[in-house]
Amino acid sequence: MKILISQEGLNATLATVARAVSTKNTIPVLSGVYLSARDGALTIRATDLELAIEAFTPCEVISEGEIVLPARYFADLIRRIPYGNIELSVDYQNYVASLRWGRSQYVIHGFSAEQFPSVPDIAGASVFTVSQSLLRDLLRQTTFAAGHDESKPWLTGVLFKLRENKITGTATDSVRIAHAESAVENPSDHAFSIIIPSRSLNEVTRLLTGDEESQVRVSVTANQVFFDLGNMRVISRLLEGQYPDVMRLVPQTYPTDAVLPRAEFMEALERATLIARDGAVKISIQPEKVTITSNTPEVGHVYEELAVASMTGDPIDIGFNAKYLLDFLKVLETSEFRFQCSGSRNPARLQPAGSSQFLYVVLPLITL
Amino acid sequence: MKILISQEGLNATLATVARAVSTKNTIPVLSGVYLSARDGALTIRATDLELAIEAFTPCEVISEGEIVLPARYFADLIRRIPYGNIELSVDYQNYVASLRWGRSQYVIHGFSAEQFPSVPDIAGASVFTVSQSLLRDLLRQTTFAAGHDESKPWLTGVLFKLRENKITGTATDSVRIAHAESAVENPSDHAFSIIIPSRSLNEVTRLLTGDEESQVRVSVTANQVFFDLGNMRVISRLLEGQYPDVMRLVPQTYPTDAVLPRAEFMEALERATLIARDGAVKISIQPEKVTITSNTPEVGHVYEELAVASMTGDPIDIGFNAKYLLDFLKVLETSEFRFQCSGSRNPARLQPAGSSQFLYVVLPLITL
Repeated sequence: MKILISQEGLNATLATVARAVSTKNTIPVLSGVYLSARDGALTIRATDLELAIEAFTPCEVISEGEIVLPARYFADLIRRIPYGNIELSVDYQNYVASLRWGRSQYVIHGFSAEQFPSVPDIAGASVFTVSQSLLRDLLRQTTFAAGHDESKPWLTGVLFKLRENKITGTATDSVRIAHAESAVENPSDHAFSIIIPSRSLNEVTRLLTGDEESQVRVSVTANQVFFDLGNMRVISRLLEGQYPDVMRLVPQTYPTDAVLPRAEFMEALERATLIARDGAVKISIQPEKVTITSNTPEVGHVYEELAVASMTGDPIDIGFNAKYLLDFLKVLETSEFRFQCSGSRNPARLQPAGSSQFLYVVLPLITL
Repeated sequence: MKILISQEGLNATLATVARAVSTKNTIPVLSGVYLSARDGALTIRATDLELAIEAFTPCEVISEGEIVLPARYFADLIRRIPYGNIELSVDYQNYVASLRWGRSQYVIHGFSAEQFPSVPDIAGASVFTVSQSLLRDLLRQTTFAAGHDESKPWLTGVLFKLRENKITGTATDSVRIAHAESAVENPSDHAFSIIIPSRSLNEVTRLLTGDEESQVRVSVTANQVFFDLGNMRVISRLLEGQYPDVMRLVPQTYPTDAVLPRAEFMEALERATLIARDGAVKISIQPEKVTITSNTPEVGHVYEELAVASMTGDPIDIGFNAKYLLDFLKVLETSEFRFQCSGSRNPARLQPAGSSQFLYVVLPLITL
């Protein structure tokens, strides 16, 4: 293997891929990135066996071949090389790569590419496409609400259901539920239901642009999902388990229905959490105002008051862990949101004002 | 105590002062900031008993008084309050402060100001003034080289000597020495020699602007130094101990004398440290080029080559811990530097090209 490649292209591709490198060094070769030079392009891949990221960048291939190089040394070094062309050549007797640019030359010890896991087979997959921007919204609106309890692994992912031209995502950690939906195009199957680990989804979200024109092709097999973004692919295993039907726990009627300003409410909650022990705040919704209060002995009192944009139904005093409200407000993109309560002991429902594409259900704190 | 104060002024002043707050909570009141409202200004002070920072900001004083408030809560809260005026009033029955702005009101529990350490007496101090920009250069060029070994506490500071209109700073950790000098104005005494803790100097450096017009008034007493920056003061205790006469260890003659480009040499060293174990590199200085090499078994080889700007005397191969060279290059502001060696087993001398205001002496690695 011998190639000529631009520092910019190699550096950007490595930075994309390196996030999938295993941080637990149980299998030495997984601390590396796999490089394959073929057909005028360099393919770089990394995996921790749950998640794989693969990206492609053009280069001049003088001779084809593969090698695995230690991800950390290699990516740090490439980042610090000046702009310009780098010659990368591999000596297969010792699995060492030589890098030359300007008057410098580095030699790095690697691994045989044969030890590196191959990409799973995509044959027979269900396929659909979705705009990068819509998929990014769907993932941002749900992934944050997934659980971290490894004793219920299926709750550490997001449940996706495809039915006709609509995909829904649902995540819960047993205290709150985030649920969002998005239109998809050209689905090849009628329906499926899969659970994708939230770590994989966070990496996909990071790579998606806000571009509405760009499409992602999503392929689902029995135990893998492939996100194809054109010049890169993310491949994740699926989580097994029976996802609970959490949406049936959501109240149907809400005697309190208010529309509140997102930014002011969020800033007031952020201030309140500085003083409120464990983020415990009391929200009082009244026709003309909403207040946030909290009293932490030895520390201090909080009193925040905001105007409500509109309010119908019953006034209410209801306790929350402010963190759970902030998580919702941080991913919201509208300037107002709808806050509906069904008494102070039942889950409340939050949504962007004027939209039912995204909803968030959160249990109150009963102790207040 | 009752004041009206702008969020911007209070926030900026708190951010300046809060760095002196004790992180070890042995004395509860030292986890707070002292506030004193008097004569149309709020004075804020924090100290960890080694270092104190005090800053002033104008405000409307409705009634004078003092209080100590918990630094972390208070500074975090003020930072998150919107622009505009804040009313701060103190209830001395319970030592609680009320903050009001807009429609919000917070109450924070504090401490009696009587428990807070007062500022030491400045009477009889030796005084001089120096431009903020020159003092900043002097501190940046020396403080980084101080030691961290608490068994030799005097080496954890920088030695300053004033003689006539010149101040010199010297710092060493026994492997390298940084030595720089600066002109001062209006010295009230003929000579002194003091050791200032490097932590205090880092805080002073952070507060100094690059402005050549602004002056710092420095006052030195038997065991304290005061840096007066106009709207703020930093007060530090001095370190005791007999500072060794390290400058006499510096070789007088250098058979190798080269001028090298700062940026390229620094970038090459930074790349080399990615591969070189413990930063151990070999520098070869020859009439037409300098090379940096290193060989770490199982990891790889480094070969970096650069043009020298000029070179006289004997070629040399000499080993260094690249970290010590990088520390010097990072604070250097000239595009070239002078690298002088006195054989491969004696300290080397580095200086900005064309200046003897700043010099750096570093022991080679003999093992290479």
